[in-house]
Amino acid sequence: MTQASPTARVTTWLRAFTAALRSGDIATTAALFDTPCFWRDMVTFTWNITTLEGRDAITAMLEARLAEVGPDAFRIVGEATEIDGACEAEFVFETRLARGQGYLRLRGERCWTLLTAITGLKGHEEKSGPTRDSGVVHGVYKNRKTWLEKRLEEERELGHSTQPYCLIIGGGQGGMALGARLRRLDVPTIIIDKNPRAGDSWRNRYKSLCLHDAVWQDHMPYLPFPDHWPVFIPKDQMGDWLEAYALIMELNYWTSTRCVSARYDDAAREWNVVVERAGARVTLRPKQLVLATGMSGVPLVPSFPGATSFKGAQLHSSAYRSGEAYAGKRCVVIGSNNSAHDICADLWEHDAEVTMVQRSPTVVVRSETLMIFSWEHVYSEAAVARGITTELADLMGASVPHRLTGPRAKPVYDRIRDHDKDLYARLEKVGFQFDFGEDGSGIACKYARRGSGYYIDVGASELVCDGRIKLKSRVAVERITENSAVLSDGVELPADLIVYATGYGSMSGWAAQLISPEVAAKVGLCWGLGSGTSNDPGPWEGELRNMWKPTHQDGLWFQGGNLVQARFFSIILALQLKARALGIPTPVYGMQQVHHHG
Amino acid sequence: MTQASPTARVTTWLRAFTAALRSGDIATTAALFDTPCFWRDMVTFTWNITTLEGRDAITAMLEARLAEVGPDAFRIVGEATEIDGACEAEFVFETRLARGQGYLRLRGERCWTLLTAITGLKGHEEKSGPTRDSGVVHGVYKNRKTWLEKRLEEERELGHSTQPYCLIIGGGQGGMALGARLRRLDVPTIIIDKNPRAGDSWRNRYKSLCLHDAVWQDHMPYLPFPDHWPVFIPKDQMGDWLEAYALIMELNYWTSTRCVSARYDDAAREWNVVVERAGARVTLRPKQLVLATGMSGVPLVPSFPGATSFKGAQLHSSAYRSGEAYAGKRCVVIGSNNSAHDICADLWEHDAEVTMVQRSPTVVVRSETLMIFSWEHVYSEAAVARGITTELADLMGASVPHRLTGPRAKPVYDRIRDHDKDLYARLEKVGFQFDFGEDGSGIACKYARRGSGYYIDVGASELVCDGRIKLKSRVAVERITENSAVLSDGVELPADLIVYATGYGSMSGWAAQLISPEVAAKVGLCWGLGSGTSNDPGPWEGELRNMWKPTHQDGLWFQGGNLVQARFFSIILALQLKARALGIPTPVYGMQQVHHHG
Repeated sequence: MTQASPTARVTTWLRAFTAALRSGDIATTAALFDTPCFWRDMVTFTWNITTLEGRDAITAMLEARLAEVGPDAFRIVGEATEIDGACEAEFVFETRLARGQGYLRLRGERCWTLLTAITGLKGHEEKSGPTRDSGVVHGVYKNRKTWLEKRLEEERELGHSTQPYCLIIGGGQGGMALGARLRRLDVPTIIIDKNPRAGDSWRNRYKSLCLHDAVWQDHMPYLPFPDHWPVFIPKDQMGDWLEAYALIMELNYWTSTRCVSARYDDAAREWNVVVERAGARVTLRPKQLVLATGMSGVPLVPSFPGATSFKGAQLHSSAYRSGEAYAGKRCVVIGSNNSAHDICADLWEHDAEVTMVQRSPTVVVRSETLMIFSWEHVYSEAAVARGITTELADLMGASVPHRLTGPRAKPVYDRIRDHDKDLYARLEKVGFQFDFGEDGSGIACKYARRGSGYYIDVGASELVCDGRIKLKSRVAVERITENSAVLSDGVELPADLIVYATGYGSMSGWAAQLISPEVAAKVGLCWGLGSGTSNDPGPWEGELRNMWKPTHQDGLWFQGGNLVQARFFSIILALQLKARALGIPTPVYGMQQVHHHG
Repeated sequence: MTQASPTARVTTWLRAFTAALRSGDIATTAALFDTPCFWRDMVTFTWNITTLEGRDAITAMLEARLAEVGPDAFRIVGEATEIDGACEAEFVFETRLARGQGYLRLRGERCWTLLTAITGLKGHEEKSGPTRDSGVVHGVYKNRKTWLEKRLEEERELGHSTQPYCLIIGGGQGGMALGARLRRLDVPTIIIDKNPRAGDSWRNRYKSLCLHDAVWQDHMPYLPFPDHWPVFIPKDQMGDWLEAYALIMELNYWTSTRCVSARYDDAAREWNVVVERAGARVTLRPKQLVLATGMSGVPLVPSFPGATSFKGAQLHSSAYRSGEAYAGKRCVVIGSNNSAHDICADLWEHDAEVTMVQRSPTVVVRSETLMIFSWEHVYSEAAVARGITTELADLMGASVPHRLTGPRAKPVYDRIRDHDKDLYARLEKVGFQFDFGEDGSGIACKYARRGSGYYIDVGASELVCDGRIKLKSRVAVERITENSAVLSDGVELPADLIVYATGYGSMSGWAAQLISPEVAAKVGLCWGLGSGTSNDPGPWEGELRNMWKPTHQDGLWFQGGNLVQARFFSIILALQLKARALGIPTPVYGMQQVHHHG
């Protein structure tokens, strides 16, 4: 081992890397990587989001792409640190066409993990700070158009006499974050949303909901929350924020608008999208169509025998609002993940008699514990005080290849399990089935693999433990009668209300619904890594399927995920769209194969 | 002169100051000040905004206040710098009840200028960053109220079954900034505004208006503009920002609401304010009433003989919207300050034939030049890059006692005059009367003395120079006929439109209108320093009359000014109100006398 400082070691490596790339010497470049090694690229080298695992994969990519990309000027940002024997640091670089940032981990003098991510296209940088617009054109001119006149003209014309380059279906956090990026990049865009007000995607959720992620994770691009905003933002406050955000970021946001149909015209290389806006049909012809309809996809309601005969109320968790109407009523909640727990708690708070039906194991972690062990070091007041801004935390998070997230998370969950052993013992005692994922890797991995399967405990586990929420576990629902749910162990649960907290299908379900089953099948499933664990069949993909990157349908893109992802990947996706709007050639390297049809 | 570093010198002085104050040794304390010296206090020592000029004034204040105030722990923030022979630095301190910040200038080892300003009341600090609320109450409770339920309950009850502690009349930047501070300090407050939407106070201005101050000066408290916002924000964009601000800051903002009357009940020590909200009358009984109705006060329209006979359109500049209707029409604009120039330019842009009637000299400075010579070093991208945040710039600005602003500005204006000598020569040639104030101190001083008398040139001076805006100067308006304005030199200007860009009265005019002429007279004029220059009669006051500080009417306050003042003084005023809401004794030292009745 060398005696050089972490910063000196990173600087040396980046210099060698720059030199090898500049000289086109792929063998030397590859030799700078350790075994094993991972290079995760977002757009700068591959016009794709892809993780190259091992020297051979890196060599193959460079052989295909190096000459065209022209990478250069890799330069450390700030100081490197040494963590668990690896030396890590943020850096910036450029290519012939783009600017990028990245994150490097060295083991010894070789690269263990490398992230390269696009931040801008040269000559098309977002105007900001010193390059911001003047706002006023000094001097006096005839026929000057004011900011308002230009805004109103755009609102009047875009989608009618002029066409948006990009249409985003779904105006939640994902659609808005992408819309804001595209606005800053001067890509004409319309966002449509079925709700009457921006922010309703949060307002419409159940009453007691607060964001499960802490405020430092939740900032939208360009406009951070004020410093007094609560750690866990109530859903209606978040709704108001998003409504203000749409106004401030000057989004062309069509409320009360539904997509009726979408069809790709191969000859014209554009979409024909019929939307219904406040009752009137409008046909839009964008070049690019982004589904930002919620990473959770279409609600899944199992078709239990007899369900149609049920005389009480039954609804999917996505349609649940409040327990107010159910005081004294018998409620059965089918499912045991986040929504199921929150809804059971809400029903109990409103004096309902509530039973949770658990069909498969759930990862349970107390919110405070998750904060301490998983997030505190990157997304927290303390992290900010140490200079880890939300942007740097995002970069650090993205720098870990998916292959490593499980092994890195496991020891954390071992500590969590020990920290809250009392809770887990009591959950076990009442028969609640919990695990930490099949490989003990916990919530983040389950989220990436299947987008579900966990509960971040903000109090409902206590109610389960002490029986205020009744529990039936290790059972299936066999059938529904007029006034009950009958379980596989023969128990009959009388019910006035049945809530199906049974999850969501893949986002490709939206493509099937809005475009066609053929296009959905061609594109394949969205989300998931191919980890081979439950609900995430292999083969290994290395990246989330179809998210924020090119799909097998020309001009079709998927934007989704939590607020961290909405923020971080929105610029990655926006720059792919901007490059296409500019007519820059965008040859996609390492295009995914479709293993699972949507 | 010592060889010690500026930081060491400031540290030494603050230590000596702390020690002298702590021991109650007023003579020693006074001896730490130079001759001349200035101590500007905002609330921490005096429960007032007042500048003590000279050792005797300082001694007298300390004799009255020191024992009760208990100041302590003066501590430098950052590093001191040496500028023009004075050594200056930011500091913080505390008193028995409050926390404060300040700014110090030393000449040699003695204090030349001292600013002490309140930032918070101990035990009642705003929650922010590490002390922010959780948002969610972990655990599950019956009858929990959500954020939305609490907001709706407050909206329903406040002003009806419960009373606001504070009522703010006027919901522009001043009312909103103060409202946001009070919200953060948990002081129940209602803001009323006559317009249908928050932000309309800007939207309703003339079409071509952009903010005259640059974006770094314009931030509202707690929520800075995004980095891409233009240098000079268009008025409608500012309107949208303020509308979003009211939502985000959770202001109780009553739109479409007018104040009908206000009367102070001396026995109950509260106001009876009748307001008309969307047609219905509501009586409010706040303890404190803040007029934030615009520092410019009631529009002044001179009553020229014959004006009622005029057959064309005539309006005050505040009612002017756009020149669209006046293409080819003959327009006379009476006045030669900011609004007059902007309106003349707007009319010319819309192909009107326009004449400006100048009755007295105007300070003209080109916007770019003002930026370079006056603002660039404190409010700019470059300043931010040097660590001068908007908050620090505010503090530095406030640290200069009014007595010194003129002498400090004069050399700057000498340079400005030289820099733009071509412009001034051409203005002179067409007969435009310009000056730099009676003592050459320029715009900022004119603004403090009379709130008017200047034009920040964004292009109209060019039109005046080349005759596209016709000019009549050194004249008065003698009378108005059916179709013209007749000037004191006998010239008759045919007119289809007359715009009175003739300024505004004192804010105490609002008190006369809404409360009573007696209260307005008791309170006296607002604004102005008593400089003895035109429109600002003496005696010298040292501070703006009645602004942001106690008046001679119990429970009546004035909030107003530009965005810098709205931001900076809103916390000063808010904490005075909070202290009263808490029932803390607030003996006002150095209460101003009323020399000019409103």
